[in-house]
Amino acid sequence: MIKQLEISLPAFPRGFHLITRHIVNALGELPETGLLNVFLHHTSAGLCINENADPSVMHDLETSFNRIAPERLPEYIHTLEGDDDMPAHVKSALTGVSLTIPISNGRLKLGTWQGICLCEFRNHGGSRRLTLTIYS
Amino acid sequence: MIKQLEISLPAFPRGFHLITRHIVNALGELPETGLLNVFLHHTSAGLCINENADPSVMHDLETSFNRIAPERLPEYIHTLEGDDDMPAHVKSALTGVSLTIPISNGRLKLGTWQGICLCEFRNHGGSRRLTLTIYS
Amino acid sequence: MIKQLEISLPAFPRGFHLITRHIVNALGELPETGLLNVFLHHTSAGLCINENADPSVMHDLETSFNRIAPERLPEYIHTLEGDDDMPAHVKSALTGVSLTIPISNGRLKLGTWQGICLCEFRNHGGSRRLTLTIYS
Repeated sequence: MIKQLEISLPAFPRGFHLITRHIVNALGELPETGLLNVFLHHTSAGLCINENADPSVMHDLETSFNRIAPERLPEYIHTLEGDDDMPAHVKSALTGVSLTIPISNGRLKLGTWQGICLCEFRNHGGSRRLTLTIYS
Repeated sequence: MIKQLEISLPAFPRGFHLITRHIVNALGELPETGLLNVFLHHTSAGLCINENADPSVMHDLETSFNRIAPERLPEYIHTLEGDDDMPAHVKSALTGVSLTIPISNGRLKLGTWQGICLCEFRNHGGSRRLTLTIYS
Repeated sequence: MIKQLEISLPAFPRGFHLITRHIVNALGELPETGLLNVFLHHTSAGLCINENADPSVMHDLETSFNRIAPERLPEYIHTLEGDDDMPAHVKSALTGVSLTIPISNGRLKLGTWQGICLCEFRNHGGSRRLTLTIYS
């Protein structure tokens, strides 16, 4: 069995943001056992699974990714869309845009400290679209 | 239902290359709804989803990954296979080698600006093998 | 058909470690054709697929990731759990915690040189839990 739906997230500011609740609410009742794929339809944002408890981790992830893919590198040639654009594509290649997560006992089987994060790499990325696909 | 096939890509030069067309052509008719997994059978190349329109993004991704995992670090001990080899393994761990993409209305459901990229991290990587698995 | 099981890995020291054998042994008989998802229930470790033959690659991956996400950055604010903690979250976002691998002819279809790696980013991470989900 397969179920698929598309959702739009509210616009988030640049940074890492927990969106587990947005996804769980959109999914409704889950099968007993299965897999969920979360797919982000953008190339300047990403998805990751990370710490769901202490917001300082989200803060330091943003800091760290800015250090790994800095703005205004003299080597960049893709510069027309703003200083934040090319680093956003690099960061998106690093995190990826597709997550597959087990479903068990009718719930997403995340670890105790795991949450699903939207990584918004643009200064003004606007609303982002996700496709959620459930297999069971 | 499951369908699986293996394809070989033409040899690409070092860099990021859009291969959406190679994959779509190999897949033929797609189911109405499902998931596609693309798996690369190599450890010195990677897969990512990124910008499909402006080739300058592919260029700057190559530049950025070279900065993140540079050649000839004095700390490297895996050096026998050439200066480009160890950085290729690091970059492959960063991008990953497996992509899962939704299928909807009989088509790959990529965002408007999304394409599937082969990240060729070796100077002379040769032809690369992919396994494509469709679930529906 | 879907099959799901959870396993606990032995505690590994900080670094990259091949765990293909742990996973294959736990899975037992595999279906003829399918997909395996490996999901790690932690936010300070990761999973990747990389070189299975020469241990010097595992060594240099550890060195490289330490360079990409160094300890004791003055910008970090998440510092209470030790110098190795925040870099571990960054590295986990970079490698990811979920792998999807094709099954073909009743075996995991990895490339000749590919192995599944646990990336242990903490100094004393302890035993790590994985959920293995097979689709066929």
